Amino acid sequence: MTVQDTAKRAKEAAVRLSSLSTELKNRCLMEMADTLRNRAEEILKESAEDVRKAEISVEKGKLGPPLLKRLKLDASKLDQMILSIESVAAMKDPVGEVLGKTLLDDGLVLSRVACPIGVIGVIFESRPDAVTQIGSLCFKSGNSVILKGGSEAGRSIRILVESMNEALSKFPEVPVGVFNMVETREDVSAMLDLDRLIDLLIPRGSNELVRYIQSHTKIPVLGHSDGICNVYVDIDVDLPSATELVVDSKCQYPGVCNAAENLLVHREIAGEVLPLVRKELEENGVLLKGCEETQKILQGISPATDKDWDTEYLDLILSIKVVADLTEAIDFINLHGSGHTDAILTKDQGSARQFFSGVDSSSVLHNCSTRFADGFRYGLGAEVGISTNKTHARGPVGLEGLVIYQYRLEGSGQTVAQYSGKGGKKFKHKPLAE
Amino acid sequence: MTVQDTAKRAKEAAVRLSSLSTELKNRCLMEMADTLRNRAEEILKESAEDVRKAEISVEKGKLGPPLLKRLKLDASKLDQMILSIESVAAMKDPVGEVLGKTLLDDGLVLSRVACPIGVIGVIFESRPDAVTQIGSLCFKSGNSVILKGGSEAGRSIRILVESMNEALSKFPEVPVGVFNMVETREDVSAMLDLDRLIDLLIPRGSNELVRYIQSHTKIPVLGHSDGICNVYVDIDVDLPSATELVVDSKCQYPGVCNAAENLLVHREIAGEVLPLVRKELEENGVLLKGCEETQKILQGISPATDKDWDTEYLDLILSIKVVADLTEAIDFINLHGSGHTDAILTKDQGSARQFFSGVDSSSVLHNCSTRFADGFRYGLGAEVGISTNKTHARGPVGLEGLVIYQYRLEGSGQTVAQYSGKGGKKFKHKPLAE
Repeated sequence: MTVQDTAKRAKEAAVRLSSLSTELKNRCLMEMADTLRNRAEEILKESAEDVRKAEISVEKGKLGPPLLKRLKLDASKLDQMILSIESVAAMKDPVGEVLGKTLLDDGLVLSRVACPIGVIGVIFESRPDAVTQIGSLCFKSGNSVILKGGSEAGRSIRILVESMNEALSKFPEVPVGVFNMVETREDVSAMLDLDRLIDLLIPRGSNELVRYIQSHTKIPVLGHSDGICNVYVDIDVDLPSATELVVDSKCQYPGVCNAAENLLVHREIAGEVLPLVRKELEENGVLLKGCEETQKILQGISPATDKDWDTEYLDLILSIKVVADLTEAIDFINLHGSGHTDAILTKDQGSARQFFSGVDSSSVLHNCSTRFADGFRYGLGAEVGISTNKTHARGPVGLEGLVIYQYRLEGSGQTVAQYSGKGGKKFKHKPLAE
Repeated sequence: MTVQDTAKRAKEAAVRLSSLSTELKNRCLMEMADTLRNRAEEILKESAEDVRKAEISVEKGKLGPPLLKRLKLDASKLDQMILSIESVAAMKDPVGEVLGKTLLDDGLVLSRVACPIGVIGVIFESRPDAVTQIGSLCFKSGNSVILKGGSEAGRSIRILVESMNEALSKFPEVPVGVFNMVETREDVSAMLDLDRLIDLLIPRGSNELVRYIQSHTKIPVLGHSDGICNVYVDIDVDLPSATELVVDSKCQYPGVCNAAENLLVHREIAGEVLPLVRKELEENGVLLKGCEETQKILQGISPATDKDWDTEYLDLILSIKVVADLTEAIDFINLHGSGHTDAILTKDQGSARQFFSGVDSSSVLHNCSTRFADGFRYGLGAEVGISTNKTHARGPVGLEGLVIYQYRLEGSGQTVAQYSGKGGKKFKHKPLAE
């Protein structure tokens, strides 16, 4: 089957998926969970084979060791994946929700109704858990999926997709072609060209992967490449709390997109804040870089170059800049940040408001850690990714970001001619309760 | 000023625009209306000069005559444009609306707040009214704009933009660079490359223009190229009403995107419906084309080829196909339609429901004319265009389609470390009233 044929089948499946009842979709999800549970032994065996091969590649220096951690599927991780499918079954179905209703005129009612997007292409690297996480969210929201994972995870992904399709095959109302898998690099190139069949792409993986996809397709891409998050310490601040929040933003899990990369400090408090922060950060093994003013306060730290302000370290490194005021901080963040997640630490509600409306990022935070920007913590249940796009869905994206809407107009014989010209009927345009 | 400099200025303006109060924005809009009223004589003079030049080009055969109609600005059209700006001032401001609120934990509250998209590039042809219509909607929704109109309308567009900026210059809180204009073809090419500065493109004009833009930029494009709308007459139908709706969908204004291009008729009723419809349509000057079955019923009409089903005539031509049932109609529409607007005519509510959930288009209609799919008729006040996209905004797009949202998290010192590991704090994830 060519990628084009796969995508055509996925498109046909999507049309039928869009009208499945919530109850049926939930039964399907529970069946998927059961099937994975029943086939756990097999799945873990296939995964172990992926890991065994990857270990050889790591030994030969062909793959980096962090890959092994992402690749590895043990009983407890599989169990988490199964529980997560069950939690998606428990979530509210976004499809069919009436988002607005207007009486255009008597007997002429307009509704805006949430509906699935269609076919979603998911391109990820070596995490097999992406299959069940993104797959279950797409299915619940009525979308069909084409999955392409890293070749190192080939066996794991194949058996997971096979098991999920096996579960669906027990329901005659569910079309064939809901979960599809493609395997080669050439398949990815082919996918990127199918803008008439694939409605949305979700890349999960390195910045390079995301950037490559963004620049090689006309299909809308949901996601982000860089996660350059900033923490700004304003003049009027609780020092112990600010220090703790800087440490958490940087150190709680430095290898992820919502960890802080730049720290900005108001000039009038820099002399107090910076030594405290330095002590805590250095105890946590963080390498500090600073602007000239920072270097005067924190003697001996390395200089931060212009390049540093635009770098996502994903590591225990932090660049520090002293700023004249809130406005300079906001301008700095809009210039150097990546529109992902930025925090202000201040007791001043006015400053926080100004920061919120001035910083053009998907998440803006006040007096808490940047690490909160995440679908689970935001209560979305699960996420398909974090988007820095400024159209469609932004920030952590869960089920709601996987639907769009359709206008539905119910008439009783009205023509536009009746509403045209002098003496034409007038519209009422009265909002109705949904 | 290069296009890049213009876009940078627009980006800076956008950041400041996003925090202007509704009251101030409304005063600005009223001032714009006044300025246009005061400068009406000048504006009409400039427009007359555009028209004079265009008339010469039309005589020389370099431009088509329909262009003159679109180009022409008389006192009554200008008045309409001014009233439309005032109506935008009266509309609800979508910026700042709280779309959702969740208590993550005590003292940790997440809000999803509507905010402007940023910089919107508008590329249109020769209608000067696009300047005030799209300009006022973008301004009200807090976005800055870069306008590129057809060169035939150069003088009209220039004086309109100049007048709108003159009005804004009376308000010191309003940044410079809200309304920007670029003029050459090279400028358009440059705009299409500025995906880091321009957040959304809205092309208004021919299918060719829209397609060209869609395929030459990485910036999200809001709009549609083809408008291939279909009307399906189901088996159980009110004949006089169905005939009237077919005529209205085709003839009320054949040159626009929501006019019908294909008519589908259920086989069991085709013998009754088609002769009636033929009579009315031919009286309205419509040329009919038909599938083989249609040709047997309506002798003497031209055959419709495969190409016809995919053609947007924008003219008094209609292709007719007899279908076996509702399912065939839905499949035909999903294959040949352009996802714009499709209607079912039926007394059967079940058929209508099936049509609504099966047809994957931005507007689906039951027992009314396809010509209703329009921002004004839908009660959006005005529209920046009709989108067939399946991400962001779909169907007629008004103010609401010009905003996106931002997550705002208000904490009181919470770190993610406190919520991690065994014994970590638990999230409450309690929805709050907005």
